[in-house]
Amino acid sequence: MKKIVLVYSGGLDTSVCIPLVREEYGFDHVITVTVDVGQPEEDIRQAEERARRLGAEHYTIDAKQLFVEYFCWPAVRANGDYEGYPLSTSIARPLIALKAVEKARELGATAFGHGCTGKGNDQFRIEYILRTLMPEAEIIAPMREGRRLPDGRREPWTRSEEIDYANAHGLDIPQTKERIWSVDENLWGRSIEGGRLEEPDYAPPEEIFKWTRGPGNCLPTPQTITIEFEQGVPVALDGQRLDPVSLVTTLNRIAGQHGVGRIDIMEDRMLGLKVRENYECPAAVTLLTAHRALEALVCTQGELKFKAMVDREWGELAYKGLWFDPLKEDLEAFIARVQERVNGVVHLRLFQGTASVIGRNSPNALYSADLASFDSKTFDQSESLGIVKTHGLQSRMYFHLRQSGR
Amino acid sequence: MKKIVLVYSGGLDTSVCIPLVREEYGFDHVITVTVDVGQPEEDIRQAEERARRLGAEHYTIDAKQLFVEYFCWPAVRANGDYEGYPLSTSIARPLIALKAVEKARELGATAFGHGCTGKGNDQFRIEYILRTLMPEAEIIAPMREGRRLPDGRREPWTRSEEIDYANAHGLDIPQTKERIWSVDENLWGRSIEGGRLEEPDYAPPEEIFKWTRGPGNCLPTPQTITIEFEQGVPVALDGQRLDPVSLVTTLNRIAGQHGVGRIDIMEDRMLGLKVRENYECPAAVTLLTAHRALEALVCTQGELKFKAMVDREWGELAYKGLWFDPLKEDLEAFIARVQERVNGVVHLRLFQGTASVIGRNSPNALYSADLASFDSKTFDQSESLGIVKTHGLQSRMYFHLRQSGR
Amino acid sequence: MKKIVLVYSGGLDTSVCIPLVREEYGFDHVITVTVDVGQPEEDIRQAEERARRLGAEHYTIDAKQLFVEYFCWPAVRANGDYEGYPLSTSIARPLIALKAVEKARELGATAFGHGCTGKGNDQFRIEYILRTLMPEAEIIAPMREGRRLPDGRREPWTRSEEIDYANAHGLDIPQTKERIWSVDENLWGRSIEGGRLEEPDYAPPEEIFKWTRGPGNCLPTPQTITIEFEQGVPVALDGQRLDPVSLVTTLNRIAGQHGVGRIDIMEDRMLGLKVRENYECPAAVTLLTAHRALEALVCTQGELKFKAMVDREWGELAYKGLWFDPLKEDLEAFIARVQERVNGVVHLRLFQGTASVIGRNSPNALYSADLASFDSKTFDQSESLGIVKTHGLQSRMYFHLRQSGR
Amino acid sequence: MKKIVLVYSGGLDTSVCIPLVREEYGFDHVITVTVDVGQPEEDIRQAEERARRLGAEHYTIDAKQLFVEYFCWPAVRANGDYEGYPLSTSIARPLIALKAVEKARELGATAFGHGCTGKGNDQFRIEYILRTLMPEAEIIAPMREGRRLPDGRREPWTRSEEIDYANAHGLDIPQTKERIWSVDENLWGRSIEGGRLEEPDYAPPEEIFKWTRGPGNCLPTPQTITIEFEQGVPVALDGQRLDPVSLVTTLNRIAGQHGVGRIDIMEDRMLGLKVRENYECPAAVTLLTAHRALEALVCTQGELKFKAMVDREWGELAYKGLWFDPLKEDLEAFIARVQERVNGVVHLRLFQGTASVIGRNSPNALYSADLASFDSKTFDQSESLGIVKTHGLQSRMYFHLRQSGR
Repeated sequence: MKKIVLVYSGGLDTSVCIPLVREEYGFDHVITVTVDVGQPEEDIRQAEERARRLGAEHYTIDAKQLFVEYFCWPAVRANGDYEGYPLSTSIARPLIALKAVEKARELGATAFGHGCTGKGNDQFRIEYILRTLMPEAEIIAPMREGRRLPDGRREPWTRSEEIDYANAHGLDIPQTKERIWSVDENLWGRSIEGGRLEEPDYAPPEEIFKWTRGPGNCLPTPQTITIEFEQGVPVALDGQRLDPVSLVTTLNRIAGQHGVGRIDIMEDRMLGLKVRENYECPAAVTLLTAHRALEALVCTQGELKFKAMVDREWGELAYKGLWFDPLKEDLEAFIARVQERVNGVVHLRLFQGTASVIGRNSPNALYSADLASFDSKTFDQSESLGIVKTHGLQSRMYFHLRQSGR
Repeated sequence: MKKIVLVYSGGLDTSVCIPLVREEYGFDHVITVTVDVGQPEEDIRQAEERARRLGAEHYTIDAKQLFVEYFCWPAVRANGDYEGYPLSTSIARPLIALKAVEKARELGATAFGHGCTGKGNDQFRIEYILRTLMPEAEIIAPMREGRRLPDGRREPWTRSEEIDYANAHGLDIPQTKERIWSVDENLWGRSIEGGRLEEPDYAPPEEIFKWTRGPGNCLPTPQTITIEFEQGVPVALDGQRLDPVSLVTTLNRIAGQHGVGRIDIMEDRMLGLKVRENYECPAAVTLLTAHRALEALVCTQGELKFKAMVDREWGELAYKGLWFDPLKEDLEAFIARVQERVNGVVHLRLFQGTASVIGRNSPNALYSADLASFDSKTFDQSESLGIVKTHGLQSRMYFHLRQSGR
Repeated sequence: MKKIVLVYSGGLDTSVCIPLVREEYGFDHVITVTVDVGQPEEDIRQAEERARRLGAEHYTIDAKQLFVEYFCWPAVRANGDYEGYPLSTSIARPLIALKAVEKARELGATAFGHGCTGKGNDQFRIEYILRTLMPEAEIIAPMREGRRLPDGRREPWTRSEEIDYANAHGLDIPQTKERIWSVDENLWGRSIEGGRLEEPDYAPPEEIFKWTRGPGNCLPTPQTITIEFEQGVPVALDGQRLDPVSLVTTLNRIAGQHGVGRIDIMEDRMLGLKVRENYECPAAVTLLTAHRALEALVCTQGELKFKAMVDREWGELAYKGLWFDPLKEDLEAFIARVQERVNGVVHLRLFQGTASVIGRNSPNALYSADLASFDSKTFDQSESLGIVKTHGLQSRMYFHLRQSGR
Repeated sequence: MKKIVLVYSGGLDTSVCIPLVREEYGFDHVITVTVDVGQPEEDIRQAEERARRLGAEHYTIDAKQLFVEYFCWPAVRANGDYEGYPLSTSIARPLIALKAVEKARELGATAFGHGCTGKGNDQFRIEYILRTLMPEAEIIAPMREGRRLPDGRREPWTRSEEIDYANAHGLDIPQTKERIWSVDENLWGRSIEGGRLEEPDYAPPEEIFKWTRGPGNCLPTPQTITIEFEQGVPVALDGQRLDPVSLVTTLNRIAGQHGVGRIDIMEDRMLGLKVRENYECPAAVTLLTAHRALEALVCTQGELKFKAMVDREWGELAYKGLWFDPLKEDLEAFIARVQERVNGVVHLRLFQGTASVIGRNSPNALYSADLASFDSKTFDQSESLGIVKTHGLQSRMYFHLRQSGR
């Protein structure tokens, strides 16, 4: 019995893989694993239904809490961003792969399949985790390898061919024209890409958005909310402590009603392609905005400058899916030290697409009435004369030399 | 005849300096220089009026075009920002000081006076320029030195004492209570600070804003604008080429009506104090947003990452007023090379406080139909297998060692 | 007539490629191009001889001066280093590929062959240039593809198989056991790698070195030399202006006699493998040491700190062979600005493996008697009180808070 | 009884301070504290003797072990360097100040005196610690304030005046001409500065060195040593575990005999002055060389690149004496994480001024026979084709656009 664990979303690509790994790769026992990181209920039900129809042994694994606690919260602490996008799809992939490995270990499988193509980022993220945790496992990527032609060559699958193939194996998918765009959704964000959306200069149509209201459609009055952080982690909303999943879910709803969280960027994919991407991530944008504002209150200027580099590097590693990279762990040690002081509350006004910080307060603020007076005791304005006189000393030497023709 | 050039705003502090440099510092010829970088007309008229009354030889110098071309445009190219604030006050100071030096040279003065206190940033910026361009000049800062007491000691001036002193010398300023906040304004931005506004947790009252409409008060419908850049410099708005000053002025008006450009941050001042600051800078925020979007289209991933560090360093030097620093020139050489390709248009939607990029287009885009096809010719999906297999190689070695207990 | 230009060193691998591209890839006209960047005369003669025997149309192109002026000198200005190794092999590859392209254009060839395997760095460097300059060209890498077995599969060539194959096509190479190590040599450095030398803990035997004398064998007395730089480029040795090639050649000889320039590092190759590498590069080490010392004299502290990052990035791009990368050009614009001031002389003592700077002098020094006195005029020691008092202000606030239990 | 703790070296400057703080600053109880961080025995005895003669209550505090364990070892882990100088004087100052504070607390003193002038770095380092740990304490710096003239003004003390003043208070110091240079010495290094030594182009005379033999005078045969590290800390020499102080002392002797550890740089002082500095630090140079080599073996490429920035920042903070800065603590958290794997041995050859790494070995090496085979299993050379084809993709797009005139 050759067993394979298929990382399974229930979409067309991964569904096609079920019969494919049987027919072309010789696996007679296909285990499908769908990891629930907050995608729509209907996607999960569709996965269960299709897996059943295609004769796979199916598992749905609820990883929502793990996802928020161990993936989203670290992202908050690192102001997790890649080129302007709050890392969402990218930080869910490692968890999905990790759960697939757990299931494979439990069921004694030593092969994995996934539905990623060869152009995108997800193949890197998923296979990195698989190879790290089970270096000996076989990995099959039928969509990347392409459809086998009679002469042995392979070429990319077309959507129409995939539908025919799936239907021939028991699904009942209507032949529609090419799907216009593809969506990936988890608790931390929703990405919409593909088709004309990839063009830099195509204004995205309103219909691609599901979580955020558009201009002219937001709630008509501003809403002020308060987020409390402990050690850089959001713990309460408007004074009420919430478990991680509820906090994110609630905030997605509230901020989304005010249109907060739309992101429209040019993104550099891992293979070097530049693609236009649209995201909506109301909770993520709101929490990252608040977190940054709190850091600006409790960190020294030197820390803020250096942590910007640390965060950027963290974001790049997370984008690449290198979840167990030693540098990532080193950066997180730095971040953890800083976050010890990132305690307090931030007040934001949500309105018409913007989450604006209007106040922040922390027991660890490097600002306070105490300190201000401490400062006036130790600082006599006339003493700044020496500071001013030495300001830019080398810079002035340089200018002086240049003026004298050197 | 001991001549002094006084960097003059027409405000209370600098007005007090006119009689002070005569009585306490022995200058019998006071030349006041007010540099117009876009502050309100009435401020300029007030400066002229007060200088006349106090018997100074007054000059108003229109530097608006110089300011935009040689200070704001370089700031755009460097995405000029300091801790979230589009550098405005800080980049006007060097120009003001520079014009004071020109006037001093013209009139044969070798001493300068200014009204800065010893706590702020402006003393650094202004004196750096004066010391750089006229290292031999004497510099007088009466507000920083404080009021001389009968016993020879000095203490900070109170507002009330300043008013009495000014009135005793011919002005007619009513005794009002302490001014609640202080404003600095130029074409590139407006800062409002002081009083309760310095507290991190005090929501700024609507009345401090003058250039931007507040929530609930913005224009009711979104407005789409197009900005064209040549070599990183904005040259046209909605297809119409505008001279630099008009472009900024127009955009301040348009974006301000949509509430774009309010900034509320904790800022680390040069002496190490953390202070809450409020800014409004509609044109700056809009242009910087557009410029960043265009760079994301034409720069490689490596350039974007490295330029972020270059820009941050530039911003820090500009904040400190080190306008002639050799490192600033080096960074600008880097920036100039990048900007050669920052050509094209950006479309933004202004609405309810936000300037959202909705499209971008450039002849230098690292994205195009041509290139996409060029790419498909050279890339066969199955070839990504090797890339995926080597992804995170060292990272996986590390994990493997760690698992084996090392 | 299918023409191919073969990047040809005359070694076994590239020699095997001559008949291979004929027999397996269908090229009937093989053009071999050997680019002289300072490798041993006998290598060049061997290449000519073997190409003739194997029936190729051969060209030897003298690129030594181009190499020093346009590849080594920029490396000096960028303190060109990768993980402790003065970039040498890596900066010669682009030039070699470039010359191959020129020859292909001249002769109307549109295909290239090279002898790189699939494990190393050179395939990246050479193909990057080929693909950049002639994106439409076909590229053949027979060693990377491996030997075709009767069943169509391929496997890596063994040295013995290569010798048999070469001899069968007219060469007369004796069957010896596996070559112990492989050498790459150009004017800027000599690398010795392979076999046990790749082990981190194997002390390299004295016999691998050819340019540098070992401990106990160096010239018995110290030698002081003076190097003069103009705009960061070495122009004279001991007061005598030398053309670029002579300067490097002379310095390789002199510094080599004193044992200067041996480098022994762990190096991270492009595919992620860590390998131990041995280099000898007397001129490069001496010139880079001198150049750094001169920069330390003429650059501000801020420039030195930032240029270290610029140089590191430059080194990484050069190591990867990305010679036409836009970021490399941007960094070079920064570097060029700095180098305008890198003029002057550096005195070094060469002795027993070390090039020690013992003096430096520059018209652009940010140190001089003039400036020292300028400084004493403007600086009164007691004025440093204010500077000292504000030193570490935020840092002390932090400590204060921590002490009070927050 | 007004008590003051004087940070006391026993040199002329600090000795003059003893009577001065009595006569001019009104302290009637002077406590002198000399902290032994490895300076010469005779300096310590001289301090005791002079303090006695001048009537101070004297304490010598042996802090050698603390110094190595809590100051030098962290410096090793951070590759502690500032502009090419292994931080030595700078990392001893905080400990000296810290011990002074402990003594003051013990004896109930709330004032401190020190002998630093206003031009150097030490005033910053010492006062930062004093102000951090006892913000309320009074700090007196008589040398910085200068000698009081009859008219109340102050001017810098001359050496001759200091000698006269000291002798008038009971010392017996002969009037010699200006000391040629000044020396600071602790276990980690010895600095020699001042006089002509500050000139960039003055070859330092052999006589300034005390710990290291010069060219022509070193031991005649190479010596190979082995240093073992645990978590980045040196624990054994040639297989023998040594306590921290013995390890450093022994290595200073051994490496010094081979002339290892001379440093000659241009250094940017904290006030912006560039000064030529000479150091000798045999143990520090040897250990830092070994430590770097071990890191190169166990860290990923990404870690090495990023840690270089972390280390540089650490070095800058340490140079400034900001020992309790939160950023320093954050950086140390990063460093600590990396150092967990910095275990193993490094073999070095000491000879004629150079410590050359000739081998390194670690259980945490990202190189091993195991891993090499792991690699060959997962890597088929022909798979690198895809990697090579995507190498520099954006860079080639850029070039393509540029060629087409954009």
